[in-house]
Amino acid sequence: MIKKILIANRGEIAVRIVRACAEMGIRSVAIYSEADRYALHVKRADESYNLGSEPLAGYLNARQLVNLAVQTGCDALHPGYGFLSENAELADICAERGIKFIGPSGDVIRGMGDKTEARRSMIRAGVPVTPGTDGNLADLAEALSEAERVGYPVMLKATSGGGGRGIRRCNSRAELEQAWPRVISEATKAFGSADVFLEKCIVNPKHIEAQILADSHGNTVHLFERDCSIQRRNQKLIEIAPSPQLTPEQRAYIGDLAVKAAQAVGYENAGTVEFLLAEGEVYFMEMNTRVQVEHTITEQITGIDIVREQIRIASGLPLSVKQEDIQHRGFAIQFRINAEDPKNDFLPSFGKITRYYAPGGPGVRVDTAIYTGYSIPPYYDSMCLKLIVWALTWEEALDRGLRALDDMRLQGVKTTTAYYQEILRNEEFRSGVFDTSFVEAHPELTRYSVKRKPEELALAIATAIAAHAGL
Amino acid sequence: MIKKILIANRGEIAVRIVRACAEMGIRSVAIYSEADRYALHVKRADESYNLGSEPLAGYLNARQLVNLAVQTGCDALHPGYGFLSENAELADICAERGIKFIGPSGDVIRGMGDKTEARRSMIRAGVPVTPGTDGNLADLAEALSEAERVGYPVMLKATSGGGGRGIRRCNSRAELEQAWPRVISEATKAFGSADVFLEKCIVNPKHIEAQILADSHGNTVHLFERDCSIQRRNQKLIEIAPSPQLTPEQRAYIGDLAVKAAQAVGYENAGTVEFLLAEGEVYFMEMNTRVQVEHTITEQITGIDIVREQIRIASGLPLSVKQEDIQHRGFAIQFRINAEDPKNDFLPSFGKITRYYAPGGPGVRVDTAIYTGYSIPPYYDSMCLKLIVWALTWEEALDRGLRALDDMRLQGVKTTTAYYQEILRNEEFRSGVFDTSFVEAHPELTRYSVKRKPEELALAIATAIAAHAGL
Repeated sequence: MIKKILIANRGEIAVRIVRACAEMGIRSVAIYSEADRYALHVKRADESYNLGSEPLAGYLNARQLVNLAVQTGCDALHPGYGFLSENAELADICAERGIKFIGPSGDVIRGMGDKTEARRSMIRAGVPVTPGTDGNLADLAEALSEAERVGYPVMLKATSGGGGRGIRRCNSRAELEQAWPRVISEATKAFGSADVFLEKCIVNPKHIEAQILADSHGNTVHLFERDCSIQRRNQKLIEIAPSPQLTPEQRAYIGDLAVKAAQAVGYENAGTVEFLLAEGEVYFMEMNTRVQVEHTITEQITGIDIVREQIRIASGLPLSVKQEDIQHRGFAIQFRINAEDPKNDFLPSFGKITRYYAPGGPGVRVDTAIYTGYSIPPYYDSMCLKLIVWALTWEEALDRGLRALDDMRLQGVKTTTAYYQEILRNEEFRSGVFDTSFVEAHPELTRYSVKRKPEELALAIATAIAAHAGL
Repeated sequence: MIKKILIANRGEIAVRIVRACAEMGIRSVAIYSEADRYALHVKRADESYNLGSEPLAGYLNARQLVNLAVQTGCDALHPGYGFLSENAELADICAERGIKFIGPSGDVIRGMGDKTEARRSMIRAGVPVTPGTDGNLADLAEALSEAERVGYPVMLKATSGGGGRGIRRCNSRAELEQAWPRVISEATKAFGSADVFLEKCIVNPKHIEAQILADSHGNTVHLFERDCSIQRRNQKLIEIAPSPQLTPEQRAYIGDLAVKAAQAVGYENAGTVEFLLAEGEVYFMEMNTRVQVEHTITEQITGIDIVREQIRIASGLPLSVKQEDIQHRGFAIQFRINAEDPKNDFLPSFGKITRYYAPGGPGVRVDTAIYTGYSIPPYYDSMCLKLIVWALTWEEALDRGLRALDDMRLQGVKTTTAYYQEILRNEEFRSGVFDTSFVEAHPELTRYSVKRKPEELALAIATAIAAHAGL
């Protein structure tokens, strides 16, 4: 069994992993940049190490991180999500240095990270993929002829891309010609590879993804699906488990596909197989070879602790559950509370949290690294809190979401809280039937009037009076 | 459907009811004494009314509360627990004034509140009771002869008692003679009635209670049991659902007994039937005709929102679930975080909360009315927070409890937090097999060394340096 873990991440996911370690009697080691000196993951871990003044470099230096793991007596490394979590080299270096990487092998990460190779693996395994090119595109001419073949609109994609970056939709020959140099440039900068391919664009699909767990004893299970159709510019905002818009047959079919996909590539650890659904068809999109931001909602409906299972798997233990014992109950919704201003094109709003009070009561879970007095540094993700609600029925989960968002106090930065309340009141959303076009189709939802809470109002009035009186 | 509820209570249970109202689109009205002016239930309710400077009188004045409900346009009143929650007169006045009382009728409350009448009802319904007197005792002579008949030790009990008060164990004739005037005096003072009876004392029983729900359409269901054996002087400290020490057969038997008990008295709304278990026998102890502090853990294992059901029932709606659909999953443990000093005979420790940070992450629920800067008034209950943890297995729930207690920051008053961590590390507790003698049998668990969290230590050092430097 693993005894000490280096957590190669920061913020809420680092706190999440510290908690799993604490519950399993495993020692946790946090890392931090100067900007993260007062971050919660540093306070909560058993040990912590300063990576220097560069806000990002330390979190992205695979060799240095593995060195630190060795030096601090760790026997494992958890990459979290983002940063180096899908970096095959990190997994390789861990293997070389005798550190257990809590995730799949470097080869599996590489195979899934290369979108064209992943497509070929899925085709071989009998998992449906969107019509598109079999490999990387040689040049624009090939791109244009392939686009003719599958039909416009098409998606031009960086082969090494992910997380919504390095992707461009092209509705016509002209748009493809225009996009070609841009995507190549973006891909080179962001992923260090100029390889691109194209796929038929599935218009207004639903984004459905299945969580899988696979151990080193040959057991692979799925934990049902999440509906992540509520996105803005390919960034997920609200996630739901299970999807309110699937039939039990579709649910079982997608779960089985995900298991098939994982088995086809010899997958080990936790992973997510993402699919697009449109007009009754299911298409493989990509596989994320790491824990996801939205793993929480799957935990809420199944009761299975995914990070705990990750650590068990990396320790060589078998899964603690069998497929037939995995059941889902109720509905869970996760709101990514971002420090952004929905009324100003979701501009990031970094700064000091002047007041934070966690929502509580039945069916409420909070995963966050913020606290009153904490300053959100401008160098990282704008997501500052994950609010997860659960209830037995979809309708109750919606109402609980409204209540919990209202219950929370988070002041000092602008957030997406009020915007999510508008979404929760929207009849289309409440019907449970929506697709990835929802956010763009409803710009009116950002036009809410800012309703101050009584205590904020009192403070504003007091300040105004003081100013008027020249105090 | 009910539209507006007066919440005739304070603190965390008032916040709990505000939340249920918010989720159901019901307007909530809070009440407060001067001492509670800055309480969270006042901040969270839609409206609030000052009951005056007396800290208790307002919460205990049934007629005034119902008047306020009528004046503020409420159509219902929720009594919470404690205060007037088991006061039949309040239910009667509500009925007279056309306010729906969210609980059973005054007659049912009276019938269950009178312990000898409740015993008779249970005997008629075929629910096993402890051997004891059939009615109230006429005098000490009768008490002595009844005690001879059932055998010592016996419990001398106030007929109108409850919540662990007005009860005395007598191991011998001499102790009974001594206890007699005391219990009568205590009963008169606390419950306004000098009636007493006696029962055989079940030595070191397990305290097991079943949650029931009954609607006005004749449906009565149970939501399984809670194990409340971890008590100190009859006050529950830690509650568990389901009991880790029952067989499925015992579980089903106790659930059925509870339904039978409720049906026998024409029960409506949520209630709890408390039993003592000893040497394989089950004995009815009492029925609590209100929501209980520990209803939370039943919500965690069944997914059913008990306060929501209470409001639905009072609105005349049928239960939202059928017995065959009610399932329990995993284990939930509730820790009553009391502002008390376990190292000083659990002396209450009122005062200002200088810092509070809620624990979070998977399987953690918090119900509280405290916040940083809040002063716990000395007039009320010392319970300041309910921390509830849930996990799929008993062992994981224990480890999660340890982690969540550690995760929480609550400074400014002494609390029972560290004491509960000692209990969680105790092998007997972890085995899941224990009875009501546990706390008394383990005085060593209060002898933990106070381990300061790093930030507290830093503050203490800074303060010491400042003092030394004469700053």
